[in-house]
Amino acid sequence: MAEIPESKESLSVSLQQVISLLEKHKLVEALLHKQAMPKQDLVESILHKQNLYELQKKLDVLHSADIASILEALPLEQRLDVWELVKADRDGDILLEVSDAVRQTLIADMNSDELLAAAEQLDTDELADLAPDLPKDVLQDLLDNLDTHNRARLQSALSYSEDAVGAIMDFDIITIREDITLEVALRYMRRLGSLPDHTDKLFVVDRDNILRGVLPLKRLVVSDLDASVADVMSEDAVTFHPEDIADEAAKAFERYDLVTVPVVDENNKLVGRVTVDAVMDYIRNVTESDLLSMAGLREEEDFFASIWKSVQNRWAWLALNLMTALVASRVIGLFEGSIEKIVALAALMPIVAGIGGNSGNQTTTMIVRGLALGQVASHNMKALITKELGVALLNGLVWGGVLAVVAYALYGNYQLGLVMMAAMTLNLLLAALMGVMIPLTMIRFGRDPAVGSSVLITAVTDSGGFFIFLGLATVFLL
Amino acid sequence: MAEIPESKESLSVSLQQVISLLEKHKLVEALLHKQAMPKQDLVESILHKQNLYELQKKLDVLHSADIASILEALPLEQRLDVWELVKADRDGDILLEVSDAVRQTLIADMNSDELLAAAEQLDTDELADLAPDLPKDVLQDLLDNLDTHNRARLQSALSYSEDAVGAIMDFDIITIREDITLEVALRYMRRLGSLPDHTDKLFVVDRDNILRGVLPLKRLVVSDLDASVADVMSEDAVTFHPEDIADEAAKAFERYDLVTVPVVDENNKLVGRVTVDAVMDYIRNVTESDLLSMAGLREEEDFFASIWKSVQNRWAWLALNLMTALVASRVIGLFEGSIEKIVALAALMPIVAGIGGNSGNQTTTMIVRGLALGQVASHNMKALITKELGVALLNGLVWGGVLAVVAYALYGNYQLGLVMMAAMTLNLLLAALMGVMIPLTMIRFGRDPAVGSSVLITAVTDSGGFFIFLGLATVFLL
Repeated sequence: MAEIPESKESLSVSLQQVISLLEKHKLVEALLHKQAMPKQDLVESILHKQNLYELQKKLDVLHSADIASILEALPLEQRLDVWELVKADRDGDILLEVSDAVRQTLIADMNSDELLAAAEQLDTDELADLAPDLPKDVLQDLLDNLDTHNRARLQSALSYSEDAVGAIMDFDIITIREDITLEVALRYMRRLGSLPDHTDKLFVVDRDNILRGVLPLKRLVVSDLDASVADVMSEDAVTFHPEDIADEAAKAFERYDLVTVPVVDENNKLVGRVTVDAVMDYIRNVTESDLLSMAGLREEEDFFASIWKSVQNRWAWLALNLMTALVASRVIGLFEGSIEKIVALAALMPIVAGIGGNSGNQTTTMIVRGLALGQVASHNMKALITKELGVALLNGLVWGGVLAVVAYALYGNYQLGLVMMAAMTLNLLLAALMGVMIPLTMIRFGRDPAVGSSVLITAVTDSGGFFIFLGLATVFLL
Repeated sequence: MAEIPESKESLSVSLQQVISLLEKHKLVEALLHKQAMPKQDLVESILHKQNLYELQKKLDVLHSADIASILEALPLEQRLDVWELVKADRDGDILLEVSDAVRQTLIADMNSDELLAAAEQLDTDELADLAPDLPKDVLQDLLDNLDTHNRARLQSALSYSEDAVGAIMDFDIITIREDITLEVALRYMRRLGSLPDHTDKLFVVDRDNILRGVLPLKRLVVSDLDASVADVMSEDAVTFHPEDIADEAAKAFERYDLVTVPVVDENNKLVGRVTVDAVMDYIRNVTESDLLSMAGLREEEDFFASIWKSVQNRWAWLALNLMTALVASRVIGLFEGSIEKIVALAALMPIVAGIGGNSGNQTTTMIVRGLALGQVASHNMKALITKELGVALLNGLVWGGVLAVVAYALYGNYQLGLVMMAAMTLNLLLAALMGVMIPLTMIRFGRDPAVGSSVLITAVTDSGGFFIFLGLATVFLL
């Protein structure tokens, strides 16, 4: 384990082993309880020069992914100290494992030669992941150093959008012909000496590299050696095209429990494969950036980024919210006369607006999930809206009723209570309607409804809530 | 394809095949664009009796997972019509694929005999997934029908918590001894005739079923047939215990790019395995239920649930928000005198509260992500809080300044503008502090910070924002 192994396979240390290694240094907490505390203590304490050698020894036995997670958890200065200690021949692997934000800090610390050396350890598909973060001159040198075949591959990999299957595929494919026997196939593989990670099947192609079928290893090892590949292979394997949407590919992996899938061009010519680990990384990235976007954060914010960078990152979102808040404020401004006469309105109005926002977001969350599962259909729309309006009506009458009692208790004005109940019900109905319509409209315009819907809903239910409540009060109470 | 295949492998129809099948019926949209619209049109149109046979033929060639997604997308009545048409011998598989909410509706439609027949098609680990939804008498019958070995397995699988590795493991393990040659191992496998899904490695055990190592198939097929299993196997494979936290196991799968992992007990005795597809399902479920919880929805709400069921599902969350809104309302109530004198306060106060909530949620989202990545450490705490306070101060001065100008423009009162700016800055500082402290406190008390933090933040920034703004106004403007 002290040597850098050739395949990731031998790098997968037992979790127990890693834990016991870390335990010696009280690092176990870091892994088990998500609290990096003792990890840093260690790193700090042994960052003193006399301990550098010891730390380096520890790092050498860790999986690249584990080193990546240590780098993620360290503030910039210490991160670069540790980065210096990592053996140069693992730089490439580790750069692939860290997040975009951390990768940029590490690359900024490397000179062109180091970057070139790191990049040269990588496969073409891995290079494609790294390329967007490399300085232009390094990327050019890299392209110049590649042979024609790999340069064409890299350029085509770079040409696919982030959301396409082409961006997550790799080129580690083992192909065989259909007319040979399994015995010959096995002999061929023994000559190869090792197979790429995640090889669960061989791709069967003809002379022109046209995909004829796939031969799962687990079928290869149980079948008669005299049988031909054509007899044993399965011809109806799932395949993707490089332009396919990665999201759909990920769904196919989940749905059909796949490990690897061949990628073919429009002529059914084999161009690469997608593996389940690339799919898991893809899903993880998408859900993470969705979660961050919902709070108006971009994925790129390094946890230890400077104040100035963080402000830039969160700027746009706050500005947008400020705009919608200003609109709501102007709505209230319209009714200043009413508030002056019944000041209780000022205290009660945020309740109407707030509950509307919460309820609208519940509806939107249901719809976004229904869209993802293919449950939202034009045929369902009437039933769906009816149901959401029904829920809103019931909630409005119940909670509005509760609030009516509270308002009466506080202000001794039963008409104020009735206005409260009516406003609450109407705003919940508005929230339900918007909660259905906004995500559907966003989908129609090709936007991701998971991300922007919440701001829009809240904007409508705030301004709408204030307008309904203050408007009703102005009409009925003054 | 028309027959029900024995293994999922042969069921994985080409995506293209399915699409072309569906295309004939204008169903392609359903799969490609997440709009189930035409799917239902078809189902509706052929649900008429004369077309039942045709629909049944279509269903028979679909993968269980695809049938499951059709069932998910149908309103209750039509869902049960389609369910009737599905061949009884696939009931078990399909029940496993549908969501909990839909599974309950399907099970409610089946009698004990049908349920028993469906359950008997399943493996022990699959039964464990289904068991919680089965009526007690069916479960008892099922246990009675199992042999001792499988009954013990089922009972132990049921004993693990949902978040434990034991709950996601299966028992489809192929074991071999370390002292045989690869040739003998291959001969043994050929006798078996087929291997379980996802078999990427064989588990090497001794006479007492103690795990000695793992033999990846991709190493088996490239190695010399005369070599012994012991020579070729890898001894430092990642392993789990049934009590391990499933979340940590999922991280290990992502980090080390695993396909299957042996599960061993405290004596290193092999008890099962975890496969990457179970891990993907687990991750999907966790992220989904996190997303739903963030809006106060429980996973169990069927998209076509009745109004009454939906109201119950969303009840608690709305009540909680109503409580916090009432508190905020009472804070405003304290300052009714001030609002009566300067009615502009009523129009401006929601802005201060709202921006605080948004900014606090940004901070919390960063912290929750940092916690998940192990970046939040006691050693970082000071730097972290300083950074968030710095961001808040800068944002407060900038956006507060903008608002001060707006307030001055609207109300011609520069003191009101200054109070606005000061209140905004203070509330953003409060939001930053709470945005850091609340998720950390929730973690300390063993709660999931992703779920409840947002309500708490908003509660604090609403009440706090009103108090700060109205308080400052009362002191300085009156």
